[in-house]
Amino acid sequence: MARTVLTPREQDFPQWYQDVIAKAELAENGPVRGTMVIRPWGYAIWERMQAAMDARIKAAGARNAYFPLFIPESYLNREADHVEGFSPELAVVTHAGGKQLEEPIIVRPTSETMIGEFMAKWISSHRDLPLLLNQWANVVRWELRSRIFLRTTEFLWQEGHTAHTSEAEARAYARRILLDAYADFLRIELAIPVVPGRKTRRERFAGAVNTMTVEGMMGDGKALQLGTSHEFGQNFAQAFDITFTDAEQQSRLAWTTSWGSSTRMLGGMIMCHGDDDGLRLPPRVAPVQAMITVIKDGDGAPAAVAAELVDGLSAAGVRVELDDRTDLPYGRRAVDHELKGIPVRVEIGPRDLVDGQVTLVRRALGIKTPCPVADVVSATVRALADDHDQLLTEAERFRDDRTADVTTVGDAIEAARSGWARIPWRLLGETGEDELAAQGVTVRCLVHPDGRVPDTDDAAAEPDLVAIAARAY
Amino acid sequence: MARTVLTPREQDFPQWYQDVIAKAELAENGPVRGTMVIRPWGYAIWERMQAAMDARIKAAGARNAYFPLFIPESYLNREADHVEGFSPELAVVTHAGGKQLEEPIIVRPTSETMIGEFMAKWISSHRDLPLLLNQWANVVRWELRSRIFLRTTEFLWQEGHTAHTSEAEARAYARRILLDAYADFLRIELAIPVVPGRKTRRERFAGAVNTMTVEGMMGDGKALQLGTSHEFGQNFAQAFDITFTDAEQQSRLAWTTSWGSSTRMLGGMIMCHGDDDGLRLPPRVAPVQAMITVIKDGDGAPAAVAAELVDGLSAAGVRVELDDRTDLPYGRRAVDHELKGIPVRVEIGPRDLVDGQVTLVRRALGIKTPCPVADVVSATVRALADDHDQLLTEAERFRDDRTADVTTVGDAIEAARSGWARIPWRLLGETGEDELAAQGVTVRCLVHPDGRVPDTDDAAAEPDLVAIAARAY
Repeated sequence: MARTVLTPREQDFPQWYQDVIAKAELAENGPVRGTMVIRPWGYAIWERMQAAMDARIKAAGARNAYFPLFIPESYLNREADHVEGFSPELAVVTHAGGKQLEEPIIVRPTSETMIGEFMAKWISSHRDLPLLLNQWANVVRWELRSRIFLRTTEFLWQEGHTAHTSEAEARAYARRILLDAYADFLRIELAIPVVPGRKTRRERFAGAVNTMTVEGMMGDGKALQLGTSHEFGQNFAQAFDITFTDAEQQSRLAWTTSWGSSTRMLGGMIMCHGDDDGLRLPPRVAPVQAMITVIKDGDGAPAAVAAELVDGLSAAGVRVELDDRTDLPYGRRAVDHELKGIPVRVEIGPRDLVDGQVTLVRRALGIKTPCPVADVVSATVRALADDHDQLLTEAERFRDDRTADVTTVGDAIEAARSGWARIPWRLLGETGEDELAAQGVTVRCLVHPDGRVPDTDDAAAEPDLVAIAARAY
Repeated sequence: MARTVLTPREQDFPQWYQDVIAKAELAENGPVRGTMVIRPWGYAIWERMQAAMDARIKAAGARNAYFPLFIPESYLNREADHVEGFSPELAVVTHAGGKQLEEPIIVRPTSETMIGEFMAKWISSHRDLPLLLNQWANVVRWELRSRIFLRTTEFLWQEGHTAHTSEAEARAYARRILLDAYADFLRIELAIPVVPGRKTRRERFAGAVNTMTVEGMMGDGKALQLGTSHEFGQNFAQAFDITFTDAEQQSRLAWTTSWGSSTRMLGGMIMCHGDDDGLRLPPRVAPVQAMITVIKDGDGAPAAVAAELVDGLSAAGVRVELDDRTDLPYGRRAVDHELKGIPVRVEIGPRDLVDGQVTLVRRALGIKTPCPVADVVSATVRALADDHDQLLTEAERFRDDRTADVTTVGDAIEAARSGWARIPWRLLGETGEDELAAQGVTVRCLVHPDGRVPDTDDAAAEPDLVAIAARAY
């Protein structure tokens, strides 16, 4: 029905993505290069995502805090690798309060250095560890080629930073966040079947000894990194002097981790589940799960039934809204609800009501079925649960169909035209990785065939490692 | 018990305030001038405040969105009064992506101009109105004399911006937020009995035609502005070209409002309820409402009772935590819980347990009573409800005791040494207001004797107006 509104995905996927964002009123570009305005519909989805992610982070024992936006330039010079990774992306405040500043100020691209500084101050004894901190904040990385949600000059994220007494504990915690927070959230709330894995040395975060990732396949077969979790070993603790006295009164360096996920996940959700009619919202994060739509209200009966259904659905815990704008053409309203991805639409018109029926439209499956008024609440509750599973299954099937097992660089490049290549890491190696990169194909992560996250990126130590290679956002 | 830890309030109120913030681990100064780090305990309180305020804002029909941190310098020149109000406070980004920028970028001190720009874009018909937007964000205003929570270079806030078809509707909405969101939140969640009123012309927000405020009295008798709501008339609509076509197809200018509340409310909560032992948290925003404290665990009986009480209180909806660090001196732990303001402490030691009793300590009232184990849950639930009322009543009594009705500028200045002066506005007038200001006393707001918020600041039109004059933060 909405097919004329959006550029079809097959024709031009990036244009389709932009169209969806604009027509579903999710976001638009801000006036300063690469910035974005997140509109109410987009932000309401983000709020639900944020709440669900926050609950998982708190369940993992981390506590929220807030650190300043402004970082003294000198902080960034403490960890050489780290600053090198960021310097071309920095925004710098040189004037404030009507004067030139003595020391320029960096607008945070991440808070590693700031939080490292305070960890050093707050930690003295092993009793202060683990210190598990998280913050929800905006960060700024200057982008020349921005794309809303995927790569913007300013974005919203959470960044966790933790310090531990041992390497084993830090390692376990970084994995716990990767699996129990990120992978679980993406699967259970966003219906995105991500692959958790380990980055190769080439793709590692600046300053980290290990970067882990969760990768999702988008509707064009490309990969999107949806969250990362890093172990820093003792590098950051060394640079920021994060030490503790152990039970034997010895001073020791802490082991630190950091991990982040961002508004980029909104982009992933759009590109994983969207279709040519617009967004398809995973029901658990849909701000409106059911839209009760009065098509035409002849004798007042549709409006009465609509009010009754709004009450019934609300009482059943469904987030429901009423669209009774019968002065607007029905088709236009339906197109709008489809574009916005509202999971269930209940259409009420005088004609069907004669038989005591309404029409239930399920966005995820694109099916319309008549439904007795008395069954609408239970049918909607069932549909919402089922649609989540359907979206997840569909995405899994799509990913598996578009993933090829290969053994040569040439075949990997070929497979990456439409999807992902799986290639044994011992066959590919860092040389093969460079050859792929020259063709715009990257190793998204290393995994074990059974899905476990590798302990190393050393094919000698873990000979069964598989590299997942793809083009990526 | 904690009296040795903090500077007494009578001795040095500002120092006491700083001590509480440090010792209760609420926040500390950031490395860049005037910035702050909100530590986990402070942030957990803020999160509860934010949730309760957000619910009220949504109940008033506003929808959350997110606008960029960075504003092109040119935007600020559109509304001359507005930019003049802010220019000495601006932080300016001049370099980004490794280059000098062609146009400098302002780090938002507020988003009026940014949101005005987008409102103009999104509004075309009267059907698009009212447009009710809110955002939770960080803003930056360069401060030379900062004080944590009260006046910081960067702070967290919500800013609402709305556009309406008529002056009456805009006026009603600005009042609705002032009363149903701000005043209600401060009273019902923070137990702060604020006075809602109208600012005089002198104290009005730059560019506004009317600024309304909610003012609270702090423990030293000074006033703190805890939230403001502004009507802009058509000034902003004019500057940003926010127009709509009405039902008769005529193009008309919209009427806009804006309103904000911030982390400053945390400062207000501390200064309204804190005592010489530290913070006293209003129970509804306390991250931990009851601390089950094992004093000493001889035979394991205290630990068993503690576990049982944690379960029982959780089941009753109380936010409860267990302190079983019996290897630390009990006194030190108690001092810490008092400093942090945890409303109820349940002390469990082997001695009392012989009689089947524990000790209930109520922070707000400073009383300790023995309590049978079986009654702890119900006694705690009652105490939490009661403590809120007690804090509110105490603050009301304090405010009323420290408020004097006067008729001369001299008496007002005298009254403002220890509290607030109420003086008829027709007697004071703008000349008297200037005389007060010369002595560091400002008119916090104008009110009607019955508490209503005035429609004007014109003593001829509303002869019974009363000015509340005080020293303020």
